[in-house]
Amino acid sequence: MFKKILIANRGEIAVRIIRTCKELGIKTVAIYSTADKDSLPVFLADEAICIGGEKPASSYLNIPAIISAAEISGADAIHPGYGFLSENPGFAEVCRACGIEFIGPSSETMVVMGDKAQARSIAKKAGIPIVPGSDVVKNAEEALQIAKEIGFPVLVKAAHGGGGRGMRIIESEEGAKELIETAMAEAEAAFGNGEVYVEKLILKPRHIEIQVIADKHGNVIIFGERECSLQRRHQKVLEEAPSPFVDENLRQKLYEAARKLAQYIKYEGAGTVEFLVDEDKNFYFIEMNTRIQVEHPVTEMITGKDLIALQIKTAEGEKLEMADPELKGHAIEFRINVEDYKKNFRPTPGKVEKLLLPGGFGTRVDTHIYEGYTIPPYYDSLIAKLIVHGENRNDAIKRGKRALSEFFIEGNIKTTIPFHLKLIEDENFLKGDLDTKVLEDKILERILSN
Amino acid sequence: MFKKILIANRGEIAVRIIRTCKELGIKTVAIYSTADKDSLPVFLADEAICIGGEKPASSYLNIPAIISAAEISGADAIHPGYGFLSENPGFAEVCRACGIEFIGPSSETMVVMGDKAQARSIAKKAGIPIVPGSDVVKNAEEALQIAKEIGFPVLVKAAHGGGGRGMRIIESEEGAKELIETAMAEAEAAFGNGEVYVEKLILKPRHIEIQVIADKHGNVIIFGERECSLQRRHQKVLEEAPSPFVDENLRQKLYEAARKLAQYIKYEGAGTVEFLVDEDKNFYFIEMNTRIQVEHPVTEMITGKDLIALQIKTAEGEKLEMADPELKGHAIEFRINVEDYKKNFRPTPGKVEKLLLPGGFGTRVDTHIYEGYTIPPYYDSLIAKLIVHGENRNDAIKRGKRALSEFFIEGNIKTTIPFHLKLIEDENFLKGDLDTKVLEDKILERILSN
Repeated sequence: MFKKILIANRGEIAVRIIRTCKELGIKTVAIYSTADKDSLPVFLADEAICIGGEKPASSYLNIPAIISAAEISGADAIHPGYGFLSENPGFAEVCRACGIEFIGPSSETMVVMGDKAQARSIAKKAGIPIVPGSDVVKNAEEALQIAKEIGFPVLVKAAHGGGGRGMRIIESEEGAKELIETAMAEAEAAFGNGEVYVEKLILKPRHIEIQVIADKHGNVIIFGERECSLQRRHQKVLEEAPSPFVDENLRQKLYEAARKLAQYIKYEGAGTVEFLVDEDKNFYFIEMNTRIQVEHPVTEMITGKDLIALQIKTAEGEKLEMADPELKGHAIEFRINVEDYKKNFRPTPGKVEKLLLPGGFGTRVDTHIYEGYTIPPYYDSLIAKLIVHGENRNDAIKRGKRALSEFFIEGNIKTTIPFHLKLIEDENFLKGDLDTKVLEDKILERILSN
Repeated sequence: MFKKILIANRGEIAVRIIRTCKELGIKTVAIYSTADKDSLPVFLADEAICIGGEKPASSYLNIPAIISAAEISGADAIHPGYGFLSENPGFAEVCRACGIEFIGPSSETMVVMGDKAQARSIAKKAGIPIVPGSDVVKNAEEALQIAKEIGFPVLVKAAHGGGGRGMRIIESEEGAKELIETAMAEAEAAFGNGEVYVEKLILKPRHIEIQVIADKHGNVIIFGERECSLQRRHQKVLEEAPSPFVDENLRQKLYEAARKLAQYIKYEGAGTVEFLVDEDKNFYFIEMNTRIQVEHPVTEMITGKDLIALQIKTAEGEKLEMADPELKGHAIEFRINVEDYKKNFRPTPGKVEKLLLPGGFGTRVDTHIYEGYTIPPYYDSLIAKLIVHGENRNDAIKRGKRALSEFFIEGNIKTTIPFHLKLIEDENFLKGDLDTKVLEDKILERILSN
């Protein structure tokens, strides 16, 4: 059993972890940068140690300083939260070499899952569907052949580049060869290498992820799925659980795939297996996150399970003697950022002059801000997560609207609260008709124009 | 369907009701006294109307002013909350006479259940156990005879007085007659009338209550029990659900009794049937509260049902098409009062200079206070209800301790937070060994001496 945990993070997730540690009777050490000296984790933790300057590189990414803080305070484990060093296998290794448990999987697992190509190849070996595609092709004929095998539409992508150059969507066989050749020529011109590969184009893909927690004894428990399709620039904006699109049949298939992968790689701790799901409910593994996610509270609300507690307990070696929990009701998380959504989501850090957090039945706010707090400009713009729970999706939406409408924050800052108040009235959201592009392609314009 | 509800109350329960109305899409009217002009319900409601001066008699008990406010604002229903006019049948009648729905049962039901003797007699007719006892007895011989019938120990009580005078506990037959005669003489001397009655003395009684909601179509749904034995001067201090003492067998019996009573009196709306339960799990009806209770959130946490929403919907005439909900986990409510528990719980109203409310998983705070708010001295000293939910009682206790420990409030006020932090570590509480006297008889002394 851990006696003292150092939280190698800041903000709301540090507060979140401290809360569970207190409930488990584990002492906590907060670390902080000079910019965070007045932050809530510093106030709530049993001990707090300044580990460096305001820039992440000198503080929250400063491995020697963090290890020193753990040694000075006598912490026997480190919780990395999300972001920062949470998916850094080197950090996990240093922790363990110093006799401090890193709360997460082995660094070998982190290395493998951190490399998308390796992760994809392992998933394939484990028998989990991945987005169909090829290795590098020799010429346009081979590319066309593969495209015909996996079925149109396909994406032809430059093997050695990015940013859309050397990339073409091929809708059908007609004119396909010419398009492939154009892509190859463009890749050659842009990256000095004309090699391309072919991938199935998933139409209207949804981002649906499965929460797993595995103990050190081979048990893998599944905590339902999360619908995370509402994204802007690959950043999730709003998450919900369960997904309005997943039926019991698809759910069981996703469970099976996630469990198979976790078992195949002998996963330990909390992790998330991410899938793309197409309109026909075909699903494709994309990656696995080897840490707790920002959006984990929606899963907690529908399962009644404290995921941070289970993460800590499995790190302690405890056996998970439980079935996959039943999913009860519906939960939605709104990410509240200090951003001006009318100005391209430009960050607007500053001082919180007045603050009233929403509350009441089925309403949870995970935050590190308080009245009088100055949000520093050096970190993520997430200042709070509003999570609501209802008996069904409709109830949760109504509760979310109510809770957003009473979330009162004043100061020389702008938040995404008004953005969310429009988002939850958007027709696509209300119908649950979502995909990873719908926010940028349709919803954002509607929100900005009304 | 109601379009606009006036909340004839103040404080946290007004906030609570506004929240649900917003979720149901119903407009809200807050009424307030001059002392409450800066209160949270005034800020959150769609409209707010000042109805009188600071004293309750001139505002929250001022029926003509409240009815005027409802008429001016065009409210089609009034929610009375708890306290104030919530159990006043005359108010319910005036509301209805003015074409405004009173959210509660009929005034006839309120009259009958508001009179303890009548309520007791109706419960008896409905076949529900009541505390065994007599009507007024003629003389000591008759009293002794009745005492022998219902079994010792008994309580002999003055029929026309109170305050403990003319009251005796009679442990056994030996010396009983003399004690009864002393009681009668004392009653004669104190109240000019020596009549007494005999009642069974319930040893170590627990206060356990059953939440019911009945629709206007004869359906009565039961939402579990609440353990409310921790009381000081007949005021509940901490409530939990389910009761650590109630097993499935007793629960079903309590359900049956509560349902029978509600059906017998054709009850409508939300109500609470209160019982005393002795050490042998015998239970006795004591009274029925014909309104929502302060402690209703613990029931919401373990059933997942919004009781205020159901109360409003049944008042609208909606049919309750549901089974008694399953009870999930364990919830505890801590009543946070502005009181100095070291000085006999003397109220200490004043200004809230700094405030950090607890939050996170399984944690709910129902409150009307905010940073900068001045708590007026004219009303109840309840400033917040902290409600925690866990998978079992032990989890809920740990969560409660954590949440209490992060509840930070500063100013020239004292709260019962430190009292609760000691109460939840008390041996009787931890064992669930509770009765309505244990707080005053044992726990308080232990808390004050450490």
